[in-house]
Amino acid sequence: MHTPPPLSDAETAQLDAHWRAMNYLSACQLYLRDNPLLREPLRAEHVKPRLLGHWGSAPGLGLVYTHLNRAIRTHGLEAMGIWGPGHGAPAVLAGAWLEGTFGELEPARRRDAEGMLSLFRDFSQPGGLPSHTAPDVPGSIQEGGELGYALAHAYGAAFDNPDLLVCAVVGDGEAETGPLAAAWHSNKFLDPVHDGAVLPVLHLNGYKIANPTVLARLPEDELDALLRGYGYDPLHVTAHPDTPPAETHRALAGAFDVALERIGRYQREARARAGDAVHRPRWPMLVLRTPKGWTGPAEVEGVPVEDTWRSHQIPLTGVREDPARLRQLENWLRSYGPQELFDEEGRPEEQVLACVPEGERRLGATPHANGGRLLRELPLPALEPHAVDVERHGHTSHEPTRVLGGALTELFSDTQERRDFRLFGPDETASNHLDGVFDVTSRGWQAQTLKTDEHLGPQGRVLEVLSEHMCQGWLEGYLLTGRHGLFGTYEAFAHIVASMAGQHVKWLQSSREVPWRRPLASLNYLLTSHAWRQDHNGFSHQDPGFIDHIMNKSPQVVRVYLPPDANTLLCVADHVLRTRDTVNVVVAGKQQCFDWLSLEEARGHCERGLGVWDWAGTEAPDGEPDVVLACAGDVPTQETLAAASLLREHLPQLAVRVVNVVDIARLLPRTEHPHGLPDAEFDAVFTRDKPVIFAYHGYPWLVHRLAYRRAVHDSLHVRGYKESGATTTPFDMVMRNDMDRYRLVMDVIDRTPGLPVRATGVRQAMEDVRIRHHSWIREHGTDLPEVAEWSWSAASG
Amino acid sequence: MHTPPPLSDAETAQLDAHWRAMNYLSACQLYLRDNPLLREPLRAEHVKPRLLGHWGSAPGLGLVYTHLNRAIRTHGLEAMGIWGPGHGAPAVLAGAWLEGTFGELEPARRRDAEGMLSLFRDFSQPGGLPSHTAPDVPGSIQEGGELGYALAHAYGAAFDNPDLLVCAVVGDGEAETGPLAAAWHSNKFLDPVHDGAVLPVLHLNGYKIANPTVLARLPEDELDALLRGYGYDPLHVTAHPDTPPAETHRALAGAFDVALERIGRYQREARARAGDAVHRPRWPMLVLRTPKGWTGPAEVEGVPVEDTWRSHQIPLTGVREDPARLRQLENWLRSYGPQELFDEEGRPEEQVLACVPEGERRLGATPHANGGRLLRELPLPALEPHAVDVERHGHTSHEPTRVLGGALTELFSDTQERRDFRLFGPDETASNHLDGVFDVTSRGWQAQTLKTDEHLGPQGRVLEVLSEHMCQGWLEGYLLTGRHGLFGTYEAFAHIVASMAGQHVKWLQSSREVPWRRPLASLNYLLTSHAWRQDHNGFSHQDPGFIDHIMNKSPQVVRVYLPPDANTLLCVADHVLRTRDTVNVVVAGKQQCFDWLSLEEARGHCERGLGVWDWAGTEAPDGEPDVVLACAGDVPTQETLAAASLLREHLPQLAVRVVNVVDIARLLPRTEHPHGLPDAEFDAVFTRDKPVIFAYHGYPWLVHRLAYRRAVHDSLHVRGYKESGATTTPFDMVMRNDMDRYRLVMDVIDRTPGLPVRATGVRQAMEDVRIRHHSWIREHGTDLPEVAEWSWSAASG
Repeated sequence: MHTPPPLSDAETAQLDAHWRAMNYLSACQLYLRDNPLLREPLRAEHVKPRLLGHWGSAPGLGLVYTHLNRAIRTHGLEAMGIWGPGHGAPAVLAGAWLEGTFGELEPARRRDAEGMLSLFRDFSQPGGLPSHTAPDVPGSIQEGGELGYALAHAYGAAFDNPDLLVCAVVGDGEAETGPLAAAWHSNKFLDPVHDGAVLPVLHLNGYKIANPTVLARLPEDELDALLRGYGYDPLHVTAHPDTPPAETHRALAGAFDVALERIGRYQREARARAGDAVHRPRWPMLVLRTPKGWTGPAEVEGVPVEDTWRSHQIPLTGVREDPARLRQLENWLRSYGPQELFDEEGRPEEQVLACVPEGERRLGATPHANGGRLLRELPLPALEPHAVDVERHGHTSHEPTRVLGGALTELFSDTQERRDFRLFGPDETASNHLDGVFDVTSRGWQAQTLKTDEHLGPQGRVLEVLSEHMCQGWLEGYLLTGRHGLFGTYEAFAHIVASMAGQHVKWLQSSREVPWRRPLASLNYLLTSHAWRQDHNGFSHQDPGFIDHIMNKSPQVVRVYLPPDANTLLCVADHVLRTRDTVNVVVAGKQQCFDWLSLEEARGHCERGLGVWDWAGTEAPDGEPDVVLACAGDVPTQETLAAASLLREHLPQLAVRVVNVVDIARLLPRTEHPHGLPDAEFDAVFTRDKPVIFAYHGYPWLVHRLAYRRAVHDSLHVRGYKESGATTTPFDMVMRNDMDRYRLVMDVIDRTPGLPVRATGVRQAMEDVRIRHHSWIREHGTDLPEVAEWSWSAASG
Repeated sequence: MHTPPPLSDAETAQLDAHWRAMNYLSACQLYLRDNPLLREPLRAEHVKPRLLGHWGSAPGLGLVYTHLNRAIRTHGLEAMGIWGPGHGAPAVLAGAWLEGTFGELEPARRRDAEGMLSLFRDFSQPGGLPSHTAPDVPGSIQEGGELGYALAHAYGAAFDNPDLLVCAVVGDGEAETGPLAAAWHSNKFLDPVHDGAVLPVLHLNGYKIANPTVLARLPEDELDALLRGYGYDPLHVTAHPDTPPAETHRALAGAFDVALERIGRYQREARARAGDAVHRPRWPMLVLRTPKGWTGPAEVEGVPVEDTWRSHQIPLTGVREDPARLRQLENWLRSYGPQELFDEEGRPEEQVLACVPEGERRLGATPHANGGRLLRELPLPALEPHAVDVERHGHTSHEPTRVLGGALTELFSDTQERRDFRLFGPDETASNHLDGVFDVTSRGWQAQTLKTDEHLGPQGRVLEVLSEHMCQGWLEGYLLTGRHGLFGTYEAFAHIVASMAGQHVKWLQSSREVPWRRPLASLNYLLTSHAWRQDHNGFSHQDPGFIDHIMNKSPQVVRVYLPPDANTLLCVADHVLRTRDTVNVVVAGKQQCFDWLSLEEARGHCERGLGVWDWAGTEAPDGEPDVVLACAGDVPTQETLAAASLLREHLPQLAVRVVNVVDIARLLPRTEHPHGLPDAEFDAVFTRDKPVIFAYHGYPWLVHRLAYRRAVHDSLHVRGYKESGATTTPFDMVMRNDMDRYRLVMDVIDRTPGLPVRATGVRQAMEDVRIRHHSWIREHGTDLPEVAEWSWSAASG
């Protein structure tokens, strides 16, 4: 690759024609419902009755779209765009329509006057095209509604895509958000050998909704220092309202050329170098200053609009009512010269399309922005070699996440060449006992290393940074471009990305309704270091509410799994890595946990999602139980099994059924969730009227909200985490939240009619242990020996 | 203020003695349960059986504590510390114990051997002292469990505290988070005239849990550029494991002196200048590089520990079991020279205390870190002048938030001198129709201004930045230091700060159990631009789930209000601004909304939290209704009232009761929430067995989860938002989610027994309108005229 010569006048004119067409199409989306080519004078009835949409960032985004087109052609690039500025859809839709990709995906958007009109009419109309770059927008992988994730998405797209350039436009509004501010540092994790490149374009148009932006009001040297401090080498391009467009085109094309030449050079150098020597390039980036609402109305009724926040939404209102404003709109739209841009049929002139790349190189056509087109099945390992041997239920124990780590190690090994699976997390892979994977890969790291460092390497496929936002954003970008991944994090801190998770669910839900969007690998969370085992960390690390947040979202998309032991975790992980277009939350412990099920049993159990553990109960083979002990989650399962063994010992005549729930959506009616269990099956497991004592991992009322339509609901009693936390021992935690084995036995006694008289004594004995616990822990700081040493094998003989 | 002379050898020795005492006390908290002064040889039984806690950042934090002490004395400062690094509690507890404040607050922590032992024993033990700087830690206003908020808290504390210096230690782990990365820019919002100063200390100890940190591995010039780009003038102090402590003390004291001299100068200059001329100082900050776990074990069994991530938690384990390790621990602890630091009774020697300030200048004693001590009642305005006249229910309409804006304007005016109330938001004060406040204040802004700017000013008390994290963090810091505030934001994007909100609830819940913590002004959210009115923005802006998140948290702390109109919003706002130690979520619309209640009615209604609107129903004065129409939220209330008017028209014999709920916690049993309504009162309102059709603002299952224990629950049918969203009209939104008036009438007909035969025809008529809506909106893109033009007055005559 060499640096192309400066723009010729002809090429400048071509770029300007494309940009004018972009601006014309963007503006018309906001205003017109007829007369799309302005072949006749603009009349009030050509204008939409309700003006909705945003103009402010469209001209700047359009400018980048134009120049990225040229760069793709000139440099022979495979590239995609990330369109960060909120409400940027008009420009991106305009680009996709102009290059023809929109019409190829949806015939109604074809490249003629009628297709143009459909674009204008449907924009921001009920059920029509969105004003953000939602899944309906070709070439987009990120919703522009909630700001902050453009850079993380861009880096996620670039990882393991060595031939791809991701051009990420970052608005100066978005740049104020925390996630964006952190994500600049993603360049410390980008491997110039195995990853593609990210070219950030910081677009300073100066204003948010009603305010200037911080970065636009910094002295240029201060901004320049900031970006250099973030590790970039910024190229500044500045346009004022009166800057001749040709000058801006020359400057911007030149900046793109310099940046792309450097990127190519850094990649060639890194790829030519042998081995692991780290040399982190100072990657180029562009700082593009253009007026907000550039080329739009300079003033309205004497009030400045262009280059102020007043361009943010509709810069010129009251157009249907006021003939002078209608003329101003017409003059504005005609200023782009639509008659030079489109022929009689509304097809773009050759001049307009000269900069547009061909085929899948077009920004709206790149398969990277419709990642399902590139997705391959993962070569998931057989589980048998990783599974734990369970000859007798609950006689051994393992750390479930460590067992999973074994399978993930094999998966990393088997994808060494393909490089389409990654693990993301905030510095917790080792802490969460998944560090087995470091046998075959390392943590990706491009900054300085010291001889005392371990498991750091430039090619590592585990990405760790102490920013849940970056982890989530990278993973989203990675998945949206057709790869696979897993995000392992502390349960409580999943809330940090609650909003991002909700937006990803919305993206997937909306994508399902866009016929040309192909299914993606699901977004998988492994939430570990959970609420019940925060011996060091206490109250601030105890929050199981991410499950509740997710379960509120579209049932087509959301799944929550609570595997109770190592083998069930293996089966659940295997399952979620095969799913498409869902968000799967898996909650599993990293501490020693009894092995309840063999691999074969675990497979069947996970398949069913819930089931009776008849080996743990005391009911007759064909009988009905007197009481059901249900559980979901590893700690609740242990307490439930311990309660079952206490009941077996103290009230052997009582017919106890033990039910374990792995897939929490099974509790919902079938009408509410695709995993919902039909009522008849549910009743067969839980009964219609027997007392059900349910020990649940999270906030207990979630179980009520899921099961309130079930026949048995009036007899359902749920124990769970109720914000009674502290820095304390595992058993003290379940005691504080009334989910301990003794409390569960007391619940059974309190709620089961017709118990023998001695049940009162049993209840008192349980109460006595609980009281004894309180003094023991005060004195010893440890759990009662009978709890610490308990095992199912010892209890059940 | 002048620059003090360089440290004398005597002063250096004093500082070192204090620091050694800090380190000794920190290390002993992790290890010892006896022999606190090491007056006898260390034996295994002196060591805790279960070693919990974190050593890594303690020496660095201790060093800053020592030098901040000196700076307070030397410069006559009023100062407080923000201790960002997670798990930093040992150092801060050590400092508070040494200076005597801990013993003054809690006699058990008195400054002698016994108090010292209580500190050691209780640290990280069940029910004892936390390993983060939780509310139990004197002098702390921020929990170090979830990282990212140190700087935002520091700036929040400094706003409107012109005489305060807030020294904020930022760990290099925390510095990777998004919220922290954004918060550096808080200096563009800090007024050198009316605000105090923030002195950030970026503490680079190089490692997180198991990884190096990004910032510690940047070349110094790159890091320096980053911090200059953030607007600071960094002073670098670097210590290696073999740097003599005296050298570090001299360098750090010198850096503090330079920084404080500059801060003083900038403040004097700004305060001397007249008027509004903006000159943003390049505030100083410190970059302090020290080894992780400095002064701890250099190696353990030949493996490097000091200056590596292995110092993060317990650097030396197995101490009770291995005599060699026990000796290593003893040597380590003795290396601080405890016999020189403490007298026979365990009281610190004079040398150790020489740098400690006196009285309330001590870091553990400053009232700013126990803000309730400084809190004053707000001069809340009378509501009458701001209330809307309502002579007849629902005959006029207003924008509720605009009406509230009037009252807030008066409040801003009445606190002009006190400056203890602020409004925070992400660039949405105007968009949310609260811009009336700009009549009396402006947006605080210290960066460049242009002549086209409006409502920007250096002294402004509205803080807007496009980072919900910064808004929340600033507000928390402001409240925790004894002031008042309100955070106005888009409902959907409140999830961005879900985790922060949860942590603040935990802080308040824990504070209630700390006897010396005084009540704080509550954290108040105004969530507007809510799910039902996102005509421009669509699906990505529709998420009412923040309510669910909050309602999961400690009932002592959380409150949610859904005022249905302008006057109820006024009453709710007046109430929440008077409350203490709670987190109040107020959801209110900014669009035109019918005025249902007069101010007097609104007062009574909000007092009760829910109530029957008899003027809207059709039941006989002393009768029982046939059906209850319940509602919560502005849009559900409108649809419910419209349904009631349809029923009045079409089924006039049906006795309909209309119930409106403002305080959602009223639905919970009294045992579950202090606002829960006793069953008898609940049943009197909702009946025990009549059909209840409940139109609710958010996810409908929340109402089920709150009310599942009520007698009427089996007859409860809830409509609400069920993730069926789009860019569409207001009425189409309620249609899509089956919460429209016609659907509600159909629900009544479907669920009420004994209706006259013609009810079938009425149901069909309702269904017909719904079908008509579908074709109308496809054709016109607007709501049905009969809906758009509906009003209660027209319907009820």
